[in-house]
Amino acid sequence: MRRFLGVDKEIIQQIEAILPKERIFLDLAERYSYSYDASFGQYLPDIVVQPQSTSDISELVKLANRHLIPIYPRGAATSLSGGPLPVHGGMVLDLSCLNEKLIIDRENMLAIVSPGVVTAKIHQKAEEAGLFYPPDPSSSLVATIGGNLAENSSGPKGLKYGTTKEYVIGLEVVTPTGEIIRTGGKTVKNVTGYDLTRLIVGSEGTLGIITEAILRLIPKPGARKTLLATFPKLIDSGQTITKILSSGILPSAMELMDQACIHAVENYRPSGLPLEAEALLIIEVDGHLSAVDEEIRKCQHLCLETGASQVKIANSEEERAAIWKARRLVSPAITRMGPTKISEDATVPRSMIPEMMKKLKEIREKYELNLVVFGHAGDGNLHPNIITDQRNTAEMKKVENAVSEIFQAAVQLGGTLSGEHGIGLMKSPYMEMELGEIGLLMMKKIKEAWDPNNILNPGKIFPVPGKTKVALV
Amino acid sequence: MRRFLGVDKEIIQQIEAILPKERIFLDLAERYSYSYDASFGQYLPDIVVQPQSTSDISELVKLANRHLIPIYPRGAATSLSGGPLPVHGGMVLDLSCLNEKLIIDRENMLAIVSPGVVTAKIHQKAEEAGLFYPPDPSSSLVATIGGNLAENSSGPKGLKYGTTKEYVIGLEVVTPTGEIIRTGGKTVKNVTGYDLTRLIVGSEGTLGIITEAILRLIPKPGARKTLLATFPKLIDSGQTITKILSSGILPSAMELMDQACIHAVENYRPSGLPLEAEALLIIEVDGHLSAVDEEIRKCQHLCLETGASQVKIANSEEERAAIWKARRLVSPAITRMGPTKISEDATVPRSMIPEMMKKLKEIREKYELNLVVFGHAGDGNLHPNIITDQRNTAEMKKVENAVSEIFQAAVQLGGTLSGEHGIGLMKSPYMEMELGEIGLLMMKKIKEAWDPNNILNPGKIFPVPGKTKVALV
Repeated sequence: MRRFLGVDKEIIQQIEAILPKERIFLDLAERYSYSYDASFGQYLPDIVVQPQSTSDISELVKLANRHLIPIYPRGAATSLSGGPLPVHGGMVLDLSCLNEKLIIDRENMLAIVSPGVVTAKIHQKAEEAGLFYPPDPSSSLVATIGGNLAENSSGPKGLKYGTTKEYVIGLEVVTPTGEIIRTGGKTVKNVTGYDLTRLIVGSEGTLGIITEAILRLIPKPGARKTLLATFPKLIDSGQTITKILSSGILPSAMELMDQACIHAVENYRPSGLPLEAEALLIIEVDGHLSAVDEEIRKCQHLCLETGASQVKIANSEEERAAIWKARRLVSPAITRMGPTKISEDATVPRSMIPEMMKKLKEIREKYELNLVVFGHAGDGNLHPNIITDQRNTAEMKKVENAVSEIFQAAVQLGGTLSGEHGIGLMKSPYMEMELGEIGLLMMKKIKEAWDPNNILNPGKIFPVPGKTKVALV
Repeated sequence: MRRFLGVDKEIIQQIEAILPKERIFLDLAERYSYSYDASFGQYLPDIVVQPQSTSDISELVKLANRHLIPIYPRGAATSLSGGPLPVHGGMVLDLSCLNEKLIIDRENMLAIVSPGVVTAKIHQKAEEAGLFYPPDPSSSLVATIGGNLAENSSGPKGLKYGTTKEYVIGLEVVTPTGEIIRTGGKTVKNVTGYDLTRLIVGSEGTLGIITEAILRLIPKPGARKTLLATFPKLIDSGQTITKILSSGILPSAMELMDQACIHAVENYRPSGLPLEAEALLIIEVDGHLSAVDEEIRKCQHLCLETGASQVKIANSEEERAAIWKARRLVSPAITRMGPTKISEDATVPRSMIPEMMKKLKEIREKYELNLVVFGHAGDGNLHPNIITDQRNTAEMKKVENAVSEIFQAAVQLGGTLSGEHGIGLMKSPYMEMELGEIGLLMMKKIKEAWDPNNILNPGKIFPVPGKTKVALV
């Protein structure tokens, strides 16, 4: 890796020629608050800046190339994979202030947005216009669309509606050498040259800084119905998922909570969840009113037929909220169980969920760890979470091994390291396991061709030679 | 451009060490039949081969790199943009024989296919399993999935269901240097590194040769309804499209035929189409039975409210077939109008359709050309077709200018050169008009990094310096 240079007085003067002083942060306390994200890594940047426009960003990137300063773009820093962490110091670009533009183009069913816009605001504005932006990462009330785009986030609705990428049709981007380009456009169909839009979305800020995005919207579904099913046996919940999908129904969400999760939520906020159940499934369907009524009843029937002991259909918005509350409490509940939460998103083909759950149980028992599992079971996207304490180095060694085994299990079952959190810092040592040497090399060739100085978000996605495990200790 | 070398005796011997003799074609008559596609270009290859496996292809690509022989992958050659044309001679790789694999994985809702499988066969096998593969290019009864993947084809269903790309989650690919890699996998959610799958799909055979694809399937819609609406005024048909989409209905198809098209079809096969109408709209909705019933009636109402003189809803499969027949006859009908058909697919944001139709009318009148317009109006993807005679050089000069003006109009209205046919040979001179110098350069950097010898499908996508128009004469 190329050696990066620090930020000296001369460079600060050059930055002050681009940005007003109040947009430049050098104090330790200020830099400290930009040193972490929602993963457990922490790295101090040399400088933090808040660019106000695309041309500010272009100038900053050009400056960074001249002086070999790494640049770390950052939205709301809700990343669980260490995406925005400034691992080589350098300059953090706080893009959360770049949030003026949120245009809903009703006639073309599009949204045009700045990267700093909070995702939930797009949901809200689209729905006010009778439209719908489906991707809904669990952090959508806080996370920015820029971060969603960089990591190709998704969430529960991925099963029916796909991921963020499926809704991005155009971008404005500052390239790693500071040029401004536009990719795609306002049409859903566009085959003019290579699909740079989808190459940049999900590239975790290593191939360009997104300064504007054109998002495709769809008509808002007219109705939705939700049920909660209790399964005495975990394996039956997996079979129910397959049965429902083969019956011709495509639910908008199929969320799983395992027994450890149920106990965690019930300990945190008692609400009468069945402690003896091995799994809970939340199933939601949306669409035309008469269709969802029929579909939710069919789902109920299939759940009961496949081993559910109880199925509750929500009859009001309040009852729906109560069902989802159990799922929403999972993260806060398990966060209370220990100071360090390692949140993974290994994803397997849907039919492999029972097998993956079995492997996760074996790993939990082998390493005697506090491992809970929940997630978007309908699309095979599980969230094994290990609750631990970073200061307990003996246990952290076990966690390192357990995490490696989780990745191995996912890849062996035909799955992937990451369904929606991104590789970032945390999973880069495992890239070759999934992609092979040549597959990884093909990615690296693109990075090197576009970013010869390795200025943009260095230290992410690509493994550091010799590092074979995520360094937790 | 690097100078390519020819295929001499020594090279033929090396190819014979890879493939049996009956898979190697050197005779002029045989090579001649591989010299054209469904566009109007023609170039003679030096040699045609039919590889039987991925490793055959890998060895052939390695050989081509050693000897600097251009390689032209080819499926059923239905390309309208000159995609598979061997413009620098060299070796045509006929992949239509690589068609053994067509596995439907019902549990994971996937299809795993060889590149030579005809697209309609995937439709059929998926539907037999109660599943659905939405992309349906008009050539689907003949075209191979490999060609669809290379060009990211779509068709009428793009409006509701998106393009081929939206359904590809994994690939096996031979790289431009002959290595074999796998991209993506069997999970819909996958954010492990750069999205090479979607970079390669739509790259027109310039970044890799696809040897296997994993396609995502969805549950088969339970019902569909179709209507045909007659519009005395073209502009009203455009407004109807917007009205229907803003009403919350997302039809599975919205097809437009202009007056010239109506006349062409009626001349070819008289079936009582309204000759005085300026436009016909075919609208189809699919989904749950009770939903489609209500939706088609709402579409009918909106058509009548916005200027349609007549709306006919199909009440049986026969009536549906009769409606679609008019649309299906457009291509054969206009082919009869002259020996050369220039078929474009300039695409504009939906709201710009009336403006684009006006521009096309102006271009038709300015150049006095036989220009008809039909297409997938719901997603802004129009098909202006110019019927002419390649031997009439005076008229072909006018066509050249008219085509340039069509591209200019599309780009000025915020659209794109190509919605679904690809750039190929025909549109490469116009790339910079849409992408700008740097946008195009970013694409070229990927090509150069992956294919340093420019072996794979050279002469496509990227403009030849100094060539500012498609060379029709």
